[in-house]
Amino acid sequence: MTLRGYTCPMASKSSPTAIVIGSGSGGLTAAIGLGRVGKSAILIEAENVGGDCTNVGCIPSKSLLHHSQNTDMTPAEVLAKVQERRNYLRDHETEEVKEAPGVDFRFGRARILGEGRVEIAKSDGTTETVEAPNIVIATGSRPRPIAIEGLPADRTLTNESLFEMKEPPGHLAIVGGGAIGVEMATAFRRLGSEVTIIEYAPHLLPIMLPEAGAIVRRSLEASGVRVLVGAGASSFDPATNSLHAKPAKGDGSIAPIESVDAVLLSVGRIPNSENLGLEQTGVEVNERGMIVIDDRGRTNVSGIWACGDVTDRGGTTHAAGAWGRRILRSLVLGPVPIPDPPPMPGAVFGDPEAASVGVQPVEVPADVRRITVPVASIDRAFTDEVTEGVVIIDVRRFRGTILGATIVGPRAGELIGMVSLSMKTGVRFHQWYGTVWPYPTYADALSKAVDAYVAEAMPSVHKDLVRWLGGKVRRTLKG
Amino acid sequence: MTLRGYTCPMASKSSPTAIVIGSGSGGLTAAIGLGRVGKSAILIEAENVGGDCTNVGCIPSKSLLHHSQNTDMTPAEVLAKVQERRNYLRDHETEEVKEAPGVDFRFGRARILGEGRVEIAKSDGTTETVEAPNIVIATGSRPRPIAIEGLPADRTLTNESLFEMKEPPGHLAIVGGGAIGVEMATAFRRLGSEVTIIEYAPHLLPIMLPEAGAIVRRSLEASGVRVLVGAGASSFDPATNSLHAKPAKGDGSIAPIESVDAVLLSVGRIPNSENLGLEQTGVEVNERGMIVIDDRGRTNVSGIWACGDVTDRGGTTHAAGAWGRRILRSLVLGPVPIPDPPPMPGAVFGDPEAASVGVQPVEVPADVRRITVPVASIDRAFTDEVTEGVVIIDVRRFRGTILGATIVGPRAGELIGMVSLSMKTGVRFHQWYGTVWPYPTYADALSKAVDAYVAEAMPSVHKDLVRWLGGKVRRTLKG
Repeated sequence: MTLRGYTCPMASKSSPTAIVIGSGSGGLTAAIGLGRVGKSAILIEAENVGGDCTNVGCIPSKSLLHHSQNTDMTPAEVLAKVQERRNYLRDHETEEVKEAPGVDFRFGRARILGEGRVEIAKSDGTTETVEAPNIVIATGSRPRPIAIEGLPADRTLTNESLFEMKEPPGHLAIVGGGAIGVEMATAFRRLGSEVTIIEYAPHLLPIMLPEAGAIVRRSLEASGVRVLVGAGASSFDPATNSLHAKPAKGDGSIAPIESVDAVLLSVGRIPNSENLGLEQTGVEVNERGMIVIDDRGRTNVSGIWACGDVTDRGGTTHAAGAWGRRILRSLVLGPVPIPDPPPMPGAVFGDPEAASVGVQPVEVPADVRRITVPVASIDRAFTDEVTEGVVIIDVRRFRGTILGATIVGPRAGELIGMVSLSMKTGVRFHQWYGTVWPYPTYADALSKAVDAYVAEAMPSVHKDLVRWLGGKVRRTLKG
Repeated sequence: MTLRGYTCPMASKSSPTAIVIGSGSGGLTAAIGLGRVGKSAILIEAENVGGDCTNVGCIPSKSLLHHSQNTDMTPAEVLAKVQERRNYLRDHETEEVKEAPGVDFRFGRARILGEGRVEIAKSDGTTETVEAPNIVIATGSRPRPIAIEGLPADRTLTNESLFEMKEPPGHLAIVGGGAIGVEMATAFRRLGSEVTIIEYAPHLLPIMLPEAGAIVRRSLEASGVRVLVGAGASSFDPATNSLHAKPAKGDGSIAPIESVDAVLLSVGRIPNSENLGLEQTGVEVNERGMIVIDDRGRTNVSGIWACGDVTDRGGTTHAAGAWGRRILRSLVLGPVPIPDPPPMPGAVFGDPEAASVGVQPVEVPADVRRITVPVASIDRAFTDEVTEGVVIIDVRRFRGTILGATIVGPRAGELIGMVSLSMKTGVRFHQWYGTVWPYPTYADALSKAVDAYVAEAMPSVHKDLVRWLGGKVRRTLKG
């Protein structure tokens, strides 16, 4: 991630407001932001500036997705190009952060000693202790390891090693069909690798509605990727290079996946909450090791804050940045009221893109209208020969509050922004009615959705009203 | 355009509510909509169902922009494919409209005889007269002809003949660098044609801010298109196939454009308002021949309505559709209050896309903040190696009302929808602050814009307040 543009003069050299641990999206936002409003921060980084995003996440993966479409380069050239671009950005960000006004940047491994005190262990073996009234923990996460019996280390990949490869593997098995799995299957298939995805859940992209994973699966399969869902990788036979899998449910057997050159593990993340001194200071972590924070980004210990992947409030670059801003706001403005956390959308940049925001249970609750529009029904899909994709929007009956949306198709990552913005600003879905979008764009699918909503809602407003009032009455009776 | 989804039961066979003249976006919306809500309409079409959009506009042009990127097809195959797709959609829409409930579809040329009476002249030479209390004129527009001395008809193209070609011209000169000119330059350059654009205004895309045309120009030139701005085509020498041009201002000379195989005229549109009987019925047209309508789509003559390119209220497929809906609303609901017309965005689907909405004067008025964000500053541009593009948003100082926006870059046609939606729903720009967009998307440029706006506005809110109050006082003193 690059640094967010706050503009405010007068960085002071006064005593630091906060010690920020970790220079990913969340930490950078908090530290640089403090500097920009005339305060200062000590920023500690154990490895590389930019966090997972710049080094082993969004930047190299989206770079790879882009360059893998360039048929003028060999696969090795594509991989080298991705590394070169990533290194360029990392170096650039490192310089930027070193020169950022109000930011005292230090390399080293941080450990919280107690209230306002952090020890930095440096690579030369020395340590030093720094002090500030606030500590912001933004140490991120790492790939969740899983045991696959017999799988040699030199055939095991994670997002941390994937982008260091010089050549794409002949056959890449991907364990875990979430965002990383789907994006890397897309990219490595383009580079010519044989690709097999194994996902434990019944569908790819398990945190989205099943429709999203189904569409992405058909697209991957059409490109030659083999997709196994409802299956877990169990063991690897180094003699034959075959990966064995078992059904997630039941006792059936699955034919081994043969001739696997490398196995990418992308089955989730675990928070980097160990060795930070959290136990001694009494900072609460949940059963998954995530630091528990409130709406301001505060932990249970006064003066200790946390944001991003290390917390229980969502981990992606944009969510970490948003939480970094919330902490910044409280550090600068003090205990003035703070708006509710905005909805945090997510996007997967495969082909097609898939994006979602808000909460959408698989079973539609009685008080929710689910509007579904196939992307193939819009004219831009006709001209672009797009036959797959869907917009699914959930709206609270009668009130029109937008509860969530899933969009799969070209440019879905941009379109979901319209829903995210409306949810944040409190615009209800019927208020969209009559908006004009340029023709022919993919936004037409959203236009169709609101048309369908209004058309459906009209004859039944009365019914909805009765149901809503009924709910009120029942709640009153219960209360 | 395909038919918009209204769902409402019970199409009646009662006497028609309206006679709709023209089956493009506006006419179809009105006629089909009447049928869907249980009323009926007589729909008259002189040529092809779908209007310019389906036959000689959006559909073939966007199809061509799509297929021209396919290097597996020869240029002739691409052109044939575009025709095939267009014909498929036209046939499909023709069937749809013939079967649409409540729509009595007739081929023929319409002429208004007087209050509620229209004569249809059929291709077999017969005529018939139909009657209904309302008449909706939706006859669209045609290319504005310009005189280029010596230019033979068989070397002259407009959007009406362009998509009938079997092979791309060796050298295509395009007179007019607006939406059609830019899109067709993009597409034919991809097909291998040598392309020269001549635009009379000082920059391409003259209805947008100059920044848009400048970026599109650089991109076209990088692809090998020759761009002449501030110049008008004056004559053609059939002996040498050279097109002569003169500067729009001053007396300078311009070297002739040599070896031109075809000249595409795309210098604007004129409304199809002749031969409709408007003079006899007293329907007001402006000095450019456009029918003058009010906020409901009414002409000055009771019972006669108009929408789309034939009117003075904006001509594009989406604007025509939006006005068709407004007329429909009044026809169905009667004289109940109607919201203000929504902002009508526009988009040009070249490479990159350019889109705009609202009003943005070149000179920024004193009470307006103009926020400019280069697309190259966002991370998705870094991963996708995008170096050009801009977001320019105009916001009323102090109040935060969004007045207009211009976006140039990948997916600009989708991104402008966020601005259009906010303007329609009355969301002010500062309310965007804190919205989370998925990372890394092009929407990040909008996020940067609102960050910059809030950061800039903060220290000067007081100043803005004083200026605003000052304005009030002045207005009071003047009044």
